[in-house]
Amino acid sequence: MTTVPVSHRFVRYRRSPNDNSRIGLVDTEELNVAEVLGYADLFKLIEAHPNLAADHQFTTGDVSPLKDIEILAALPGRDVLCIGKNYIAHAAEFHKSGFDSSDKNEQPDFPVIFTKRATSIIGPGTPIYTHPNVTSSPDYEGELGIIIGKAGLAVPKENAWDYVWGAVIVNDVTARERQRDHKQFYVGKSLDTFCPMGPYVVPSSSLSFDQLHLTTKVNGEVRQSQNTSELIFDVPTLIHTASMGISIQPGDIIATGTPVGVGMGMNPKVWLKDGDLVEISIPPLGTLRNPVTSTAPAVYSLSSQ
Amino acid sequence: MTTVPVSHRFVRYRRSPNDNSRIGLVDTEELNVAEVLGYADLFKLIEAHPNLAADHQFTTGDVSPLKDIEILAALPGRDVLCIGKNYIAHAAEFHKSGFDSSDKNEQPDFPVIFTKRATSIIGPGTPIYTHPNVTSSPDYEGELGIIIGKAGLAVPKENAWDYVWGAVIVNDVTARERQRDHKQFYVGKSLDTFCPMGPYVVPSSSLSFDQLHLTTKVNGEVRQSQNTSELIFDVPTLIHTASMGISIQPGDIIATGTPVGVGMGMNPKVWLKDGDLVEISIPPLGTLRNPVTSTAPAVYSLSSQ
Repeated sequence: MTTVPVSHRFVRYRRSPNDNSRIGLVDTEELNVAEVLGYADLFKLIEAHPNLAADHQFTTGDVSPLKDIEILAALPGRDVLCIGKNYIAHAAEFHKSGFDSSDKNEQPDFPVIFTKRATSIIGPGTPIYTHPNVTSSPDYEGELGIIIGKAGLAVPKENAWDYVWGAVIVNDVTARERQRDHKQFYVGKSLDTFCPMGPYVVPSSSLSFDQLHLTTKVNGEVRQSQNTSELIFDVPTLIHTASMGISIQPGDIIATGTPVGVGMGMNPKVWLKDGDLVEISIPPLGTLRNPVTSTAPAVYSLSSQ
Repeated sequence: MTTVPVSHRFVRYRRSPNDNSRIGLVDTEELNVAEVLGYADLFKLIEAHPNLAADHQFTTGDVSPLKDIEILAALPGRDVLCIGKNYIAHAAEFHKSGFDSSDKNEQPDFPVIFTKRATSIIGPGTPIYTHPNVTSSPDYEGELGIIIGKAGLAVPKENAWDYVWGAVIVNDVTARERQRDHKQFYVGKSLDTFCPMGPYVVPSSSLSFDQLHLTTKVNGEVRQSQNTSELIFDVPTLIHTASMGISIQPGDIIATGTPVGVGMGMNPKVWLKDGDLVEISIPPLGTLRNPVTSTAPAVYSLSSQ
């Protein structure tokens, strides 16, 4: 056990299928992971360091090659907050698609907030299941997820960045006709495996939020490419709204919306299918890669996360 | 410590503000609570007994007078599933109110499912906060909450009752203009204190679901009075839909919708205000009483639940 200077790019991981989940820091070269000692999970680490300094040194233990570990979903077990229609060109493609049941306007007047069920969360590499008995329109949505660092209520916009602990990539996978038919988005957004998350969790001290660029590829073809600061409702507005009468909690994730370029917006529409590979990159946060499968996974158990 | 025959009407409770939370069984006369030993919380008890038999005897400990304990929210910490527009006359009053942004039809074609944030859950007796800086239209919704007993995926309607562990009363308090303006219901439904729950959790073996009658009173005046089986989408349909592609979990609550008679449906509309008392009764599940206050509570912390 040694105290060493390490970069602040966190993962939750295990070294084998029967290993306990651990948290670790990935080195600059993305070759090795050093286990971080003293925290049960990333929620506890965030609570202990609501404003993590760039030079904070954690006590670390075993070092494992990154290629030998399995990266798990960073912050499992809690329903994920998401923002709808938050990029101008995406709001237009959604509105024109015929799947937008909830609004007669192209752009929303107020932030549209919904949730994805905790049971939909998966890690990098885990297959996205197409649910052929439930939907014929599974679609990807690459998104920047903001992680809340401390409890807050009615957070003023001018203080909102103090509540942003860091960021993680989220794929807000969606069953389009279910999103439309049930009016409220919950069902279409919450199918098992529909919330890939990761690979890296990076604190604000290591990020320049106005310089993050998101790229989504499907089978190597670029589908989405936009700076994640080009939001209709910016991050301070989202945090202000999400905390308006609701006590936001450390470890809460707010997926900030998806840029233009989802399958629903293509002509003809293109849906995810067995054998596809979805890759979402935001450089300092890594690349979230998930294959797509039509083979059903087992019934999910929250206690196994 | 003795093993005694007791009725199956559970509460989560504490004996004083500094006490740990306990689970207990309330006696038939509603005079005493016997502590149930061996389970960390009601989630664990449900997981251990997914189909609780009516004659199952738990090991019990201390007995406390019911009047001396504080009943807590039964199943805290997890976002609550809710069904919108699920009674015919309520669907009509909502649709005519001007607050239904999500649907051009009076009655939905598919079950409308949304969530209330875990941070909104409170127990019996805790004040509902009116959030005067966030809403001018706080409203009650008395509802029967179904509790899931075991993990399930794509549960067929004909097996759905096997997944119903029991029931609890939920007050789906709603900020009407927020429900309307944000399109998705999450914000208007999830304000702190907007999910009173309790007092009793009763397993299916002690219930006749087709004979439950819900009554909501505000300041003693009856506002809602309907049999909770008069649903547009019945309980098997709700469980089938909620589990269609989503692994439902033991301890999940599905609030099944509210009958006609909310404040939004009155002429003129009447909103909750400081000093009101909301009482929702479903006889075997007890009476869920919450005062209404315009005095703000502290920022909520999930870890204190």
